[in-house]
Amino acid sequence: MPAADFRALYQRLRGQAQWGPDDRRGALNHITPARLAAAAGEVRAGRTVTMAAPLATSAADNPEPGARHMKSLPGEPSDVAGLTFAADQLVMNIHGDVDSHIDALCHVSYDGALYNGIASGAVTSKGASELSIEEAQDGIAGRGVLLDIPRLRGVRWLEPGDQVTAAELAAAEAAQQVRVSPGDLLFIRLGHRLRRQELGPWDVPRSRAGLDPRAMDFVADRQVAVLGSDSNSDAAPSTVAGVAFPVHVLAINAMGLYLLDYLQFEDLAPLCEAAGQWSFLCVIAPLRLPGGTGSPVNPIAIM
Amino acid sequence: MPAADFRALYQRLRGQAQWGPDDRRGALNHITPARLAAAAGEVRAGRTVTMAAPLATSAADNPEPGARHMKSLPGEPSDVAGLTFAADQLVMNIHGDVDSHIDALCHVSYDGALYNGIASGAVTSKGASELSIEEAQDGIAGRGVLLDIPRLRGVRWLEPGDQVTAAELAAAEAAQQVRVSPGDLLFIRLGHRLRRQELGPWDVPRSRAGLDPRAMDFVADRQVAVLGSDSNSDAAPSTVAGVAFPVHVLAINAMGLYLLDYLQFEDLAPLCEAAGQWSFLCVIAPLRLPGGTGSPVNPIAIM
Amino acid sequence: MPAADFRALYQRLRGQAQWGPDDRRGALNHITPARLAAAAGEVRAGRTVTMAAPLATSAADNPEPGARHMKSLPGEPSDVAGLTFAADQLVMNIHGDVDSHIDALCHVSYDGALYNGIASGAVTSKGASELSIEEAQDGIAGRGVLLDIPRLRGVRWLEPGDQVTAAELAAAEAAQQVRVSPGDLLFIRLGHRLRRQELGPWDVPRSRAGLDPRAMDFVADRQVAVLGSDSNSDAAPSTVAGVAFPVHVLAINAMGLYLLDYLQFEDLAPLCEAAGQWSFLCVIAPLRLPGGTGSPVNPIAIM
Amino acid sequence: MPAADFRALYQRLRGQAQWGPDDRRGALNHITPARLAAAAGEVRAGRTVTMAAPLATSAADNPEPGARHMKSLPGEPSDVAGLTFAADQLVMNIHGDVDSHIDALCHVSYDGALYNGIASGAVTSKGASELSIEEAQDGIAGRGVLLDIPRLRGVRWLEPGDQVTAAELAAAEAAQQVRVSPGDLLFIRLGHRLRRQELGPWDVPRSRAGLDPRAMDFVADRQVAVLGSDSNSDAAPSTVAGVAFPVHVLAINAMGLYLLDYLQFEDLAPLCEAAGQWSFLCVIAPLRLPGGTGSPVNPIAIM
Repeated sequence: MPAADFRALYQRLRGQAQWGPDDRRGALNHITPARLAAAAGEVRAGRTVTMAAPLATSAADNPEPGARHMKSLPGEPSDVAGLTFAADQLVMNIHGDVDSHIDALCHVSYDGALYNGIASGAVTSKGASELSIEEAQDGIAGRGVLLDIPRLRGVRWLEPGDQVTAAELAAAEAAQQVRVSPGDLLFIRLGHRLRRQELGPWDVPRSRAGLDPRAMDFVADRQVAVLGSDSNSDAAPSTVAGVAFPVHVLAINAMGLYLLDYLQFEDLAPLCEAAGQWSFLCVIAPLRLPGGTGSPVNPIAIM
Repeated sequence: MPAADFRALYQRLRGQAQWGPDDRRGALNHITPARLAAAAGEVRAGRTVTMAAPLATSAADNPEPGARHMKSLPGEPSDVAGLTFAADQLVMNIHGDVDSHIDALCHVSYDGALYNGIASGAVTSKGASELSIEEAQDGIAGRGVLLDIPRLRGVRWLEPGDQVTAAELAAAEAAQQVRVSPGDLLFIRLGHRLRRQELGPWDVPRSRAGLDPRAMDFVADRQVAVLGSDSNSDAAPSTVAGVAFPVHVLAINAMGLYLLDYLQFEDLAPLCEAAGQWSFLCVIAPLRLPGGTGSPVNPIAIM
Repeated sequence: MPAADFRALYQRLRGQAQWGPDDRRGALNHITPARLAAAAGEVRAGRTVTMAAPLATSAADNPEPGARHMKSLPGEPSDVAGLTFAADQLVMNIHGDVDSHIDALCHVSYDGALYNGIASGAVTSKGASELSIEEAQDGIAGRGVLLDIPRLRGVRWLEPGDQVTAAELAAAEAAQQVRVSPGDLLFIRLGHRLRRQELGPWDVPRSRAGLDPRAMDFVADRQVAVLGSDSNSDAAPSTVAGVAFPVHVLAINAMGLYLLDYLQFEDLAPLCEAAGQWSFLCVIAPLRLPGGTGSPVNPIAIM
Repeated sequence: MPAADFRALYQRLRGQAQWGPDDRRGALNHITPARLAAAAGEVRAGRTVTMAAPLATSAADNPEPGARHMKSLPGEPSDVAGLTFAADQLVMNIHGDVDSHIDALCHVSYDGALYNGIASGAVTSKGASELSIEEAQDGIAGRGVLLDIPRLRGVRWLEPGDQVTAAELAAAEAAQQVRVSPGDLLFIRLGHRLRRQELGPWDVPRSRAGLDPRAMDFVADRQVAVLGSDSNSDAAPSTVAGVAFPVHVLAINAMGLYLLDYLQFEDLAPLCEAAGQWSFLCVIAPLRLPGGTGSPVNPIAIM
């Protein structure tokens, strides 16, 4: 896509995100109380399913992987009377490749500004004074919808580099008999997690399936509140001249749309298939990290 | 409480936790599909509320506080074409004082064993091979109930060292016109978070309000699935001879009951009061940390 | 000291640091091969002594203390054939209070610039592209001299807030029969480490003994190559209007003088006293941290 | 080498390390005051050279690489009056592959014991209560000798898997006209750092050049105090049946000999060559890490 076309797309999408100059919630505004209350009606079978992958502590496809260290072990001498504790420490880069996380609206700067024209200088070495993940401190709950693109195409997964178009999203809706509606949390399965399980890690930073940037018109038209995938929504390499992560720019920066990267739908998709139901109550609970640019998450589908 | 009485209480509670030698879910077994489906009916107003506190990055009451470091800043020279990212790293001790977290069933060793008699050696410097937080990977959802003890007593908060009895839990039920039922996620407000906000940090490790260990009979009788408070459930100093954290031993080790420590109810309690409704749908989404002894969490109440 | 006087002092000291616009070594230029070769002659008894303190892992006087975590333990099951390893991880803020460290010349920005007029923008979230600690990658070795101010005054330690004048430095030289000479590594004992051992930690960030900023004229006149103390050279609170760390500004930013903070002389001073010799060969070995703003160090005195 | 031969070698070397049951210094005992004082005479030209490599922060040959994060940046708004600081945090696994470090005597457990028969249980999740790196808190200084094996063989570097014999060490002595003497710090250049610079990282954990385990007889006979190389002394894969790191077991566990791994001699070797002098004063300054199993180091050669 030529740079001029991308810029026009950016301007159009930004123009549709109109919640006033003081807005900090972006597309979360699409989740109204009535829509959330209705989403609770999606719970039928009474079961929960994870949409996250386990923390990856190897460097196979992440040059700076997360880690967990033990701080105390059961059975060791201890100054705690009568019992011993097992305790550990967590270290992780929030946006590390292949770890499931949510991007806050401060995550992407474009043309010197964050979402809604807030100056990039709002983020310093101390963190974000505006648009941090604390804007979502009360969690994000609503109707989740999973669109399964490999199912639509009759393949096991999309190959790295491939892009999903708006037309395919609409076709997946039809195939799955579900319609993405205002306030929905939209999840798009590309099969990358299954590919990784079966073929092993690859150079994800350089080679990913993702969305055609023009598919963001579909996302905006349907008034989607949150977008997630089992890749990071952006294909690599980018097909937009001069912009490496066009979907991130459009979603986070122009539309105020939280992205969830590197999720995992291998548990959820079979249950949806079996139930013939591709919608569910979905709850995303970012950690409360003041100034944070995002958070590790384990989004839960409740069916 | 004399050591012999504690041991008898331990044995009685352990004897009631009967899901077989292979069980790894403990009191989560109380959450049946029917109970979860019914809990979705608690959603009326269509709003979400956090039950976590912001990550504490100062050492005022935590000798080894969590931290967040920036990895990249917007506006700096970058090798990403066309945009810049704000990104950071999270570091935290999962069981650090005053940070909201959930304890996995491997957290407490007593008499050389974890829950259900699993040998403590299942936890090594690499993590827990049994009973790690991954046992709760699909999240924990059910009917949440908040009992507000300062409200019952007509005080703003309990003072450090104070203990809540089973009789008070029952009295709070009556006062709030709510009944703790099988499969519920029970949260007990002691007012410690409000006290900290108003009076500042204190020496929490040495001085906390909590539950009378005998109140765990109430918790077991009602078949509670998860227990949390805005302290850490155990009063300090302990009143049990030779056991510093008796409630942790009884809950996690004997009953297989996940504990949530250092939560925050200052947002939720006023909403419950205003609505005259002290129950809600509650979703807890532990991070997927293979081998982990617990996880930071942001439990979400949906009303 | 009024702001104008400080500025004049700054300009005068900066004017004396003349090694050309491309210089990156600053006062290390004072260490010539001949001076280093002569310093080797200080070795007589054939013994080494540490000038560092143990890593402080408690938060008593450091709001974000260092930490050490075990990564593997001996005796645990292992995939290494025939032996087991004990291994750990180190985490530390390089300039954390009370941990012994060296400040690189990029550490202090004043009037928008680092040492020798290098723009502050040379330091980004990725580290320092100029004046990082790698400039001292080959280590710093030379003649060390210890001046003991409590000894001069006949007290055990200086109280927080106190300042050492140039006249006292000269008086200490006379009392100890040693003269600070060009290229020397100058260490000044204030007794703060002993005070901490005996009275316990205090609020070091707000209350420290240090040097009178005017004493930097003495340091410059003597062509000192490196300056260290068992406080951080700057007294707190500052007596310079509007400048919280005047000695840091003068030393690092104006003079290009590496500072060593929070050292420990309780092992060295008694040996010097017994030998009647307050000079020694001194070796400082900063870690090789590309882009780093300093390094933890353990300076070694060889007598 | 058959397992029985290795065990006999282990017993013989252990039998030669006789400093009594309370000894904790091991081969450092070979450094006497007279030998250290004599080593100072090695300083002639008056220059220092690093023997460490820069911290490797990529995962190319280290699955859990070190990291440096900025904590504050110059030029940002700050609550420090009149100046701003650049500051960072260091994180590193002390024994991480390809980072220069020293192994403490608690690092290796063999047959359930550490050096000198100390039970492995002396190391817990809190660190080592015996034989930690604090045993070397005063630094290690003495006469350093560099033996250059690629120079002896007329190659640029040894290929991974190759082993250096005792005969080659003696031949290198002859070729370089230097003799390894009691109390010396012995460094052996294998060329691995040069190979990595030129050919890039490889799978170091699985494939390294190192020493023939029988060469440890040479090291013991010469009463070497410290041994280091630009690999980790142990070749991979091991040629000893059932023991993956035989040199580590012999050196650290049997002989009480500190090992330095992944050093860098590309700066030092040309200077030695030019001067025709392969000995120098060497100073190793481990950080003071209470309970630590080793330390990052930057050994300094002073010529």
